[in-house]
Amino acid sequence: MKGTVLYGPRDIRFEEREDPKIVEPTDAIIRMAVTCVCGSDLWPYRGLQPIDGPTPMGHEYCGVVEEVGSAVRSIKPGQFVIGSFATSDNTCPTCQIGYQSSCTHREFMSHAQAPLLRVPLADGTLVPTPGVPKDDLLPSLLTTSDVLGTGWFAADAANVKPGSTVVVVGDGAVGLLGVLSARQMGAERIIAMSRHEQRQKLAREFGATDIVTERGDEGVARIMDLTHGLGADSVLECVGTQDSMMQAIRSTRKGGYVGYVGVPHGVELNGEELFFSHVHLHGGPAPVRRYLPKLIDLVLNGKINPGKVFDLTLPLDQVAEGYRAMDERRAIKALLRP
Amino acid sequence: MKGTVLYGPRDIRFEEREDPKIVEPTDAIIRMAVTCVCGSDLWPYRGLQPIDGPTPMGHEYCGVVEEVGSAVRSIKPGQFVIGSFATSDNTCPTCQIGYQSSCTHREFMSHAQAPLLRVPLADGTLVPTPGVPKDDLLPSLLTTSDVLGTGWFAADAANVKPGSTVVVVGDGAVGLLGVLSARQMGAERIIAMSRHEQRQKLAREFGATDIVTERGDEGVARIMDLTHGLGADSVLECVGTQDSMMQAIRSTRKGGYVGYVGVPHGVELNGEELFFSHVHLHGGPAPVRRYLPKLIDLVLNGKINPGKVFDLTLPLDQVAEGYRAMDERRAIKALLRP
Repeated sequence: MKGTVLYGPRDIRFEEREDPKIVEPTDAIIRMAVTCVCGSDLWPYRGLQPIDGPTPMGHEYCGVVEEVGSAVRSIKPGQFVIGSFATSDNTCPTCQIGYQSSCTHREFMSHAQAPLLRVPLADGTLVPTPGVPKDDLLPSLLTTSDVLGTGWFAADAANVKPGSTVVVVGDGAVGLLGVLSARQMGAERIIAMSRHEQRQKLAREFGATDIVTERGDEGVARIMDLTHGLGADSVLECVGTQDSMMQAIRSTRKGGYVGYVGVPHGVELNGEELFFSHVHLHGGPAPVRRYLPKLIDLVLNGKINPGKVFDLTLPLDQVAEGYRAMDERRAIKALLRP
Repeated sequence: MKGTVLYGPRDIRFEEREDPKIVEPTDAIIRMAVTCVCGSDLWPYRGLQPIDGPTPMGHEYCGVVEEVGSAVRSIKPGQFVIGSFATSDNTCPTCQIGYQSSCTHREFMSHAQAPLLRVPLADGTLVPTPGVPKDDLLPSLLTTSDVLGTGWFAADAANVKPGSTVVVVGDGAVGLLGVLSARQMGAERIIAMSRHEQRQKLAREFGATDIVTERGDEGVARIMDLTHGLGADSVLECVGTQDSMMQAIRSTRKGGYVGYVGVPHGVELNGEELFFSHVHLHGGPAPVRRYLPKLIDLVLNGKINPGKVFDLTLPLDQVAEGYRAMDERRAIKALLRP
């Protein structure tokens, strides 16, 4: 088969790779229905995160099980399944408390921009849908594998409750789905920080009540204006830079909550400022497996349509154009069809 | 009157100062029953925190109201009162959600090592006891003004619940009262990190089930040994250095909670490590006012005896010896009697 490999900054190739095989008895092989490019793929694509030689890419996936290892019990060939970007046994104490993305046996997936994928720890990682879903639901189902689950975790970590005032820092797919998640959790006011017209539009569609275009200190000042000088109850940090992190912390009210899911790149937090900010801080790699059953349900029942973040659809062999379009912010998120 | 003034590193003087007067109509003047030296006083005492000229010291206090300003409504002369080290109006939105130590009108107290004290925002800051308490209760009542309230907040911020496994980093009075607080909240296992025999003894008396004498990486490894390699549910950081903060974060299980109350001095948190640690982080200046009624109650009902942290009692005019004894770790905490 052919699959996606990153060779260096902005050098994405779709090239011949070996077909995946069952390696461990707990593995499954799935045939990809749809996959996509993640905002976090842009870090190494842009050369901002070193890679160790040619690197297979992709960690968002859903599709039909082709084969399972001898120790797999609950997952069967023919099932349509969705899994998290992080594998998990779903039985260890860390999984049991809902932090499957820190499972002792975690591996981060990285071969999913391909027609076939080996998924380790299939029983603990994959969630089957009832029957094979209709094609028009695939984009939304695919988001549960990472971006929706990550936006949902950001909102959950930021303690969004009915009536909350929420700020979302970052207008990528995760930020936009953070808006959707906050709305689902009953937030009353959702302020999206974005200076990109199309993303603002989608943010509003997902439930944003206000848009703030300013950034940094000016952005914080604007949030203070909008919140009687107090700051927001909950702030979702969906970028991962020093600026976005500080913008998030400074936009939060005393005693409020910052949920951060942007993988930090070069972020250093000053202890004294954090102390006097009086915020709650929680984040990390989203435990998507915890949320998968609920999010799949919301999609299948037509309650949410997170697949709208895909504003570009390409055949899988044009994956390089997907990266380019996202890098240049011409696309929010690129869906890839094998 | 005479009061305590810090002139520079290790230069504490007890010298003539003006008697405090009502300045704002919301002020009260109280006659000190007992006061004390705080671990945080040692930062400037040791020259590790700059001071801007001669600085009156002390922020822990309780005593009888002598006089109130014209706008004071609930506090009356003759009442025995206790207040937080941070003043608060107790009516603003930040106070209403329980973060009185970040009240818009907050001032940090700093004249309490003296026989008379002006307390701003008396109605919002002071809590009266029913009647004037017996002398033997004064040390315990005094701790509610800061160290007990701070240890309690550390445990609360670290989400200590019945059955929790708790680690306490720091064996000063706050850490020791963090142990007591965790016990009150129903923690099943409380691991105190201390290499000081007397403090270990008091920690055990307050409810510690285990003592760890190792520090840094070795201390973390020991905690992992004691928690099946997972880390603790809740970790109380009661020091404020880079080492203690990292020791706290690294001793916490994935999805666990760090409550930090040691005022950070030179602490920088690496965003990426924090992200993958998956901990909840919350702390800051303790909102002691939130806890005062409950903690006073626990003391008056004889449920707790936090005053045991005072292992040295001095007449107020020997305050300099109190600082010396604490600086040299000869005393856990020095009680001062005017």
